[in-house]
Amino acid sequence: MTVIDDLPNRFRFVLVRTSHPGNIGSAARAMRTMGFARMELVAPHRFPDREASALAAGADDVLEGAGVHPGLVDSLAGSSLAFGLSARRRGVTLPELSPREAAMQAIAAAQRGEQVALVFGNERTGLENDELARCHAMVRIPSVDDFSSLNLSQAVQVMAYELRVALLGEDVPASPPVHDEPPADAAQMERFYEHLAKTLDDIDFHKGRAPTTIMLRLRKLFQRAQMDERELRMLHGILADAQRMAQLAREKE
Amino acid sequence: MTVIDDLPNRFRFVLVRTSHPGNIGSAARAMRTMGFARMELVAPHRFPDREASALAAGADDVLEGAGVHPGLVDSLAGSSLAFGLSARRRGVTLPELSPREAAMQAIAAAQRGEQVALVFGNERTGLENDELARCHAMVRIPSVDDFSSLNLSQAVQVMAYELRVALLGEDVPASPPVHDEPPADAAQMERFYEHLAKTLDDIDFHKGRAPTTIMLRLRKLFQRAQMDERELRMLHGILADAQRMAQLAREKE
Repeated sequence: MTVIDDLPNRFRFVLVRTSHPGNIGSAARAMRTMGFARMELVAPHRFPDREASALAAGADDVLEGAGVHPGLVDSLAGSSLAFGLSARRRGVTLPELSPREAAMQAIAAAQRGEQVALVFGNERTGLENDELARCHAMVRIPSVDDFSSLNLSQAVQVMAYELRVALLGEDVPASPPVHDEPPADAAQMERFYEHLAKTLDDIDFHKGRAPTTIMLRLRKLFQRAQMDERELRMLHGILADAQRMAQLAREKE
Repeated sequence: MTVIDDLPNRFRFVLVRTSHPGNIGSAARAMRTMGFARMELVAPHRFPDREASALAAGADDVLEGAGVHPGLVDSLAGSSLAFGLSARRRGVTLPELSPREAAMQAIAAAQRGEQVALVFGNERTGLENDELARCHAMVRIPSVDDFSSLNLSQAVQVMAYELRVALLGEDVPASPPVHDEPPADAAQMERFYEHLAKTLDDIDFHKGRAPTTIMLRLRKLFQRAQMDERELRMLHGILADAQRMAQLAREKE
């Protein structure tokens, strides 16, 4: 997937007037887990800082490469699309997007060769109106009304995650096969059901009732489980031992 | 949207062997922003703790209501669907879902009246195999290969966010119930595994081998099948007859 190798470099995460250096570190880690490395800091209260490095948890490259700017405008240099994250719905005359919609638009812009900025405000006060005015749209993470404030790095994580999912496409993560072993094929399943039916007879499970319904239910159950060959061998082994016990019980009658 | 008022209560976030109380607090906040309030803690290293409360940032109700359990099984009581978050792709024979797929399935189950658990492992070691074996599917957040480890509360945030988006969306296909009967809950499954283990002993299945691996494989198989109560009764009946045969065989030795 060469697309993925290149596109992430067209995104930058801009943290504006961040109060807590720990949040800068956590945000770096959050970005890095999703494959993003470019961070721009606007007037951070403390940076660099030991707490930022500690919470970056290995995403030191993000912190080391981070630009530090006096104002938002500088941090946006070269970008042609900026999304401002905001929990607030004050009279801001900007289009409001969900993180998912924003991710789609951002990826589309990046694919056209544009550079895209995701802008996150101060922990307590968010983005000021004049900062939002530098953005092309507002992104609202759909938190509940009575507890709407995500931690800064959590907001970064959600946005980075949506970008990552959008970059990877619909069908991701590519799910590896459920089994290491070959899945049981239809003929193997039939042999198993025969063995199961015979065993139920042997241990006198039916006690005169017709076995049809039971066998149908057992089939449904085991079909749902989508077993592999090793699991089937294990179940055959269990059935064989149950049959052996039934045989011993009968022999000694 | 009355749906939203009720459904979130059918979800629980289970944190297993969490090392850092701060992460418990951050997870509570992350859950709360997305409208989820039920947290279950399995053997937390320190709880309650001042750091947890500080980082909950007002989500005190989540912490105060959190159950504390010695083991995972207790924390799953009453739930019939459990998703284990895991970054690892070792030989785990569980279906692997993306957070989005898991959210869809979880909402569909909740809409059928089921209770759903999202299970998060220890910060450093994740979920152990025997813990994943209690889950019905594994959820992998699509992090990059060279920096795959999300902070625990970030993983909680991503999963809670996806659930929230799915709850808000109209796009969850109404999934027909897999079963007519009530699904088996965690405690019922545990009783079944105990009966199964005892039966394997009785019919001398192990023949001196350690039963651990076999029981783990059987758990995975039957967890995948997501059984209902009637199926469980049927299997108990089969086990009881196999035990009866073993008993007869022994008596007549």
